[in-house]
Amino acid sequence: MDADDLRAALSGLRASAPLVHCLTNTVVQTVTANTLLAAGAAPAMVDAPQEAGDFAAVASAVLINVGTVSARTAEAMLLAARSAGAAGTPWVLDPVAVGGLAYRTELAGELADLRPTVVRGNASEVMALAGAGAGGRGVDSTAGVDDAGKAAAALTARTGGVVAVSGPVDLVTDGRRTVRVGGGSELLTRTTGAGCALGALVAAYVATTEDALLGTVAAHAHVAVAAERAAATAAGPGTFVVHWIDALASVDGDALAAADLRTQA
Amino acid sequence: MDADDLRAALSGLRASAPLVHCLTNTVVQTVTANTLLAAGAAPAMVDAPQEAGDFAAVASAVLINVGTVSARTAEAMLLAARSAGAAGTPWVLDPVAVGGLAYRTELAGELADLRPTVVRGNASEVMALAGAGAGGRGVDSTAGVDDAGKAAAALTARTGGVVAVSGPVDLVTDGRRTVRVGGGSELLTRTTGAGCALGALVAAYVATTEDALLGTVAAHAHVAVAAERAAATAAGPGTFVVHWIDALASVDGDALAAADLRTQA
Amino acid sequence: MDADDLRAALSGLRASAPLVHCLTNTVVQTVTANTLLAAGAAPAMVDAPQEAGDFAAVASAVLINVGTVSARTAEAMLLAARSAGAAGTPWVLDPVAVGGLAYRTELAGELADLRPTVVRGNASEVMALAGAGAGGRGVDSTAGVDDAGKAAAALTARTGGVVAVSGPVDLVTDGRRTVRVGGGSELLTRTTGAGCALGALVAAYVATTEDALLGTVAAHAHVAVAAERAAATAAGPGTFVVHWIDALASVDGDALAAADLRTQA
Repeated sequence: MDADDLRAALSGLRASAPLVHCLTNTVVQTVTANTLLAAGAAPAMVDAPQEAGDFAAVASAVLINVGTVSARTAEAMLLAARSAGAAGTPWVLDPVAVGGLAYRTELAGELADLRPTVVRGNASEVMALAGAGAGGRGVDSTAGVDDAGKAAAALTARTGGVVAVSGPVDLVTDGRRTVRVGGGSELLTRTTGAGCALGALVAAYVATTEDALLGTVAAHAHVAVAAERAAATAAGPGTFVVHWIDALASVDGDALAAADLRTQA
Repeated sequence: MDADDLRAALSGLRASAPLVHCLTNTVVQTVTANTLLAAGAAPAMVDAPQEAGDFAAVASAVLINVGTVSARTAEAMLLAARSAGAAGTPWVLDPVAVGGLAYRTELAGELADLRPTVVRGNASEVMALAGAGAGGRGVDSTAGVDDAGKAAAALTARTGGVVAVSGPVDLVTDGRRTVRVGGGSELLTRTTGAGCALGALVAAYVATTEDALLGTVAAHAHVAVAAERAAATAAGPGTFVVHWIDALASVDGDALAAADLRTQA
Repeated sequence: MDADDLRAALSGLRASAPLVHCLTNTVVQTVTANTLLAAGAAPAMVDAPQEAGDFAAVASAVLINVGTVSARTAEAMLLAARSAGAAGTPWVLDPVAVGGLAYRTELAGELADLRPTVVRGNASEVMALAGAGAGGRGVDSTAGVDDAGKAAAALTARTGGVVAVSGPVDLVTDGRRTVRVGGGSELLTRTTGAGCALGALVAAYVATTEDALLGTVAAHAHVAVAAERAAATAAGPGTFVVHWIDALASVDGDALAAADLRTQA
């Protein structure tokens, strides 16, 4: 995976403007939609059980984020995940706060068994999701990205897909290859929804790349490079998110190719 | 319809600060509320079936947008539409993504039969809504505003109201008179909810103008003129939406009177 | 209550970064989360009945805001309030639009009887909530903060806690002591969710101060001082909210200590 791969991933995204069906939490729907639009994709939030299965079958990719899940949206998520699987449509699972709450932890386990193309979360969430499958390990809220490396590898074996762990340095693995993505900005953690929006951007990229590992890495690099650009001019977390959306749009292939990647076989 | 009509519409809106009851999708609630506040109206989002009918009866106008509709909000929308109709309160229907999804297409057809004061959508949505009533035409996602002109006219016959089709040049018609509104900015399509917020602003304007066609045109002109002002200083879609909200507040009668309108009898 | 108390409250908040469980309306979830993050707290929005009780028991504080309440979230709110009460966790009730709508007025009365640590609303809402308990007084939409003083005092007797009335000058009382907080900016009323976000910030502060009156006053002062700073550079309501979030982060103890407080025994 090199600079030319990243350039190709970005130009592929912008050439095809993939339609990303987002079943995500209500706190971050706006910033998620604006992230996708700025980067070059098209968002659609359809989360009723009456529509989610049909829509997932025609979307380019699906994002399932359990942040504010309820009985209604849980049903819609399961329908969308099954529909995406049946249609061969890539989909991303974001297990927000899984581990600490029984209801969503059980739901996320059920979704993980439907083999998401990518799981994206923080270290605690990935460890909890991996542990839930292996017998109920709790959340370690002090878990770092590296601590989560083994859990991520175990989870790839279960899903057959990619697992991404967000942190100061992100870790992305498909069980064979591992890429670390550095850079970014601490301000990403001071505004709501940056991680959730990243999950949606992963869905957009894996819709338009052959290699899901490359697509996942490209999304992380896109977010990190844009965050660096925004942090350089932000006066605080309010201006940061506005400039970050601008930067998601202005990042080009050369900027993406300069992202801080470290690959290991 | 001339420059003085637009000036009067804007001063009427700001003098009375109409309360707009919005039953709208969760992605755009924030930008919709901020659009109404900036322009000079007052938003209220009440979407429970237990309250929607009562509230629609006391609001100045009602917006119904089916973007993230579910069984609960569908029930609330029907109650609000009937309540608004019974009270003689103007209301606007925004048939987001109607045509491609059976559940909302049926709901939007039912709402259209309740005779909304204004229907506002893009070309595909207006064509689908008109077609659904005439026997089930599908969506043409490449449909332009002019292609939608006949569908809009047919829909006015069904609703007895105004139909507005958003596009690079907007088309607004009541079946007898047609006004085209140019200008605006392509950046309106790069941020989520600009069209949905326009629907809410239409509701605010028709609450405070005698002529629903004028109110609908004034709302489109207000959005377009503010977008031109914002685009002149924006560095991307993030700063654009912030400046657009500023401009919705700063636009005055003279600015609105300079909007690019073309009327035909 | 003096300048040093405010400085200590702010440093206490930032040292412990309290986790605020928000059951709030969908219009303001984003700005509420960003307000908490900017000020130094951590937001979590969990509003399903399956999870709300469990989560309230482990959070540092809970906010219950009935702005877009439905049957599902009403159930979650009652579970969270009872759970917070049982755990001794401070919680805040924001009775949005109570008085005009029967469903939420009844719910808010039931919540008030569960003895919230703080009630925060505008004058009409506080008067309606107090009146509902005393026999059904209606809302007086022209009510000022001072008119609401007696209602606030009556409400503290019912809840055993603090009541805060937002207005051009805010009034905060625990029934014995009353503090008025001036300053702020009229632009706070031109952007959606500033008052709702203030309610969440009150929850964050009362989680980390011994004295709930002090915590409530500190939150109001924090919002007011940040608003003054933002208004000095804003070009309208769009830039205002962005700069306000920046200012919530940049306000330090000295800035907070300069807030316009007037205490009476």
